[in-house]
Amino acid sequence: MRDVFIAGTGQTDIGEHWDRSLKDLAVEAVCAALPAERRGEVDCLLVGNMLSGELASQENLGACAADWAGLGPVEAVKIESACASGGAAFREGYLRVASGASDCALVLGVEKMTDLLPDGVSAGLALAADGDTENLHGATFVALNALIMRRYMHENGCRHEDFSGFAVNAHRNAAANARAMFRREVTGEDYARACMVASPINLLDSSAICDGAGAVLLCADPQALGNARRIRVTGSGAACDTIAVASRQDPLQLLAAELSSRRALAGAGRKAEDIDLFELHDAFSIMAVLSLEACGFAPRGRGLRLALEGEIGPRGRVPIATRGGLKARGHPVGATGVLQVIDAVAQLRGEAGASQVPEARVAMTQNIGGSGASIYTHILEAEG
Amino acid sequence: MRDVFIAGTGQTDIGEHWDRSLKDLAVEAVCAALPAERRGEVDCLLVGNMLSGELASQENLGACAADWAGLGPVEAVKIESACASGGAAFREGYLRVASGASDCALVLGVEKMTDLLPDGVSAGLALAADGDTENLHGATFVALNALIMRRYMHENGCRHEDFSGFAVNAHRNAAANARAMFRREVTGEDYARACMVASPINLLDSSAICDGAGAVLLCADPQALGNARRIRVTGSGAACDTIAVASRQDPLQLLAAELSSRRALAGAGRKAEDIDLFELHDAFSIMAVLSLEACGFAPRGRGLRLALEGEIGPRGRVPIATRGGLKARGHPVGATGVLQVIDAVAQLRGEAGASQVPEARVAMTQNIGGSGASIYTHILEAEG
Repeated sequence: MRDVFIAGTGQTDIGEHWDRSLKDLAVEAVCAALPAERRGEVDCLLVGNMLSGELASQENLGACAADWAGLGPVEAVKIESACASGGAAFREGYLRVASGASDCALVLGVEKMTDLLPDGVSAGLALAADGDTENLHGATFVALNALIMRRYMHENGCRHEDFSGFAVNAHRNAAANARAMFRREVTGEDYARACMVASPINLLDSSAICDGAGAVLLCADPQALGNARRIRVTGSGAACDTIAVASRQDPLQLLAAELSSRRALAGAGRKAEDIDLFELHDAFSIMAVLSLEACGFAPRGRGLRLALEGEIGPRGRVPIATRGGLKARGHPVGATGVLQVIDAVAQLRGEAGASQVPEARVAMTQNIGGSGASIYTHILEAEG
Repeated sequence: MRDVFIAGTGQTDIGEHWDRSLKDLAVEAVCAALPAERRGEVDCLLVGNMLSGELASQENLGACAADWAGLGPVEAVKIESACASGGAAFREGYLRVASGASDCALVLGVEKMTDLLPDGVSAGLALAADGDTENLHGATFVALNALIMRRYMHENGCRHEDFSGFAVNAHRNAAANARAMFRREVTGEDYARACMVASPINLLDSSAICDGAGAVLLCADPQALGNARRIRVTGSGAACDTIAVASRQDPLQLLAAELSSRRALAGAGRKAEDIDLFELHDAFSIMAVLSLEACGFAPRGRGLRLALEGEIGPRGRVPIATRGGLKARGHPVGATGVLQVIDAVAQLRGEAGASQVPEARVAMTQNIGGSGASIYTHILEAEG
């Protein structure tokens, strides 16, 4: 397998774009990542998206995006893995370039969620849960995560307020990110007062419905990178778990996070201790906790302590959501896995401003589909 | 890149399965392709599907299918490219094994279309057309193909009855295929009498809405194949075109068919003359004609002559739809690209009964998404 480098990144603002379509968002991100003069070099386009058919009445999104962005007859395909669609598309791009099937792959993640009433979006998102045993009984994703969070609190004897550090950290970091959805800080008191969504999950435990797109250009030739600091994708791992939470032996173990991070770390020749920042999938606070535990950053039942002890901030032991994360940068589902990579690249290039992780050289990203059903983990490293 | 072999195939009957779910169909095809004792060898599952979200209320279909089929925590993802989703998934599987990213990849194509009223299915299929310029004006796929067929007849001075050979050939071949949807022969008179769907396209120009699944096991190790005749995937090509037909300089040129077949043939070191059978995308008769022309089997405007001169039958110069094709074997959209491979394998193994192509050694499959917007072409060859 060949080395794979990040040759460009681009994104839209993340938020509610009531005046813009899926097409507008996709084209903006592609143009931001890909200088016009390099358009002819791209030989494949991988599009991460979950709900273009349901929410934007458009399938065949690979061919659409290639057409919209003026990429000509280039091969293009849509990759769907629920909220991990962006991570799945990034892995495809990585494998294409690493294997020599592509010399220059463009990965686009895009989602347009605000054109429907919130009920419609929740119903759409619920398509990532098990149709027979979860959806059928009306379990939305926030409901499923609430059950998991309740179980975690019960098993580990912790209180709801113990989770406040995740929202506080994410919002503080987002304040330093000009493209983030929620650029305002929140406090522990805000968290205590936030309205309940599905007990024990409150508003500040939850990422919001939003729109956005991100694009990353991957290439094999480091000469093509120009003067930017060289960022290499050194590890990639993917794994699945049962689609229904109830089918798992242990609902508090993210088996696919464990397996995919182990594979990505092994590929990079790294250990969890080597990771300088971890862009994890904090769609809900409880998912951040379970990811930290599954990937070896904390023993089982102790992930919460990292937040309580202030270790998840940019200068902590395991910086997470360093540009705002899903919680505050925003979670346009199919785009998220690509946005995580863009955030990690900003850190590795020292461009993260007030939320910069000092001397960041090794970053991990992890994108989760369903309640832990499909998980993609990547390692990115700054060279030179 | 390594050699890639077909290590197993399996499928459901193709037709209307009112009593069976998407899950039932997926599991049957996987179990038919993959002996239980080999389940542990599979390291990735690529699922081709277009409309599971819209028609079966289930996304994250990769993880679902892996779970349903008992494949454990294996990496799994859904690939969407409209009616070419199966071909796109097959290409992903091929690339994974060829590159060494996978030693044993399972490709599943599945679609469950009959649970909705026909209006709902047509609206779902229309999501593969351009939302802004085609869908918005109510153009269904049959309407778009009717415009193309009318233009073809005008430019080339041919009559509607000249197209009858495609339906007659497909139905005759399907009669010899126990898994086909329409196992009855039709005549030129039946064609002349068939009811009009969207002039000039009549019922026998059109593939039908149906359900079905197919699965193909790909592996790098020829030792794993046992005693079956060795079938190797020798070429793979993909390309896109504009999503809207009206954006093309020439609506009668399938540019992506031309490019993808050229790439696949070049990869295999073959020319069009070497192809013993061509499983093409005869969703409508006119698409079969345009594919024959785009891939070099006939000059422009002369593809129809192959049918008129009897050259598309199993003993003709360019046998097509040899197991019934999309027209008569059936076209469960996301499954079709995988079913084409299964049909080609049956021919290359000499198991096609009354529609066997004599001494078939080199087969080409071609799967089309949208009105020619995304196209996947593969070459399969029998060895030894």
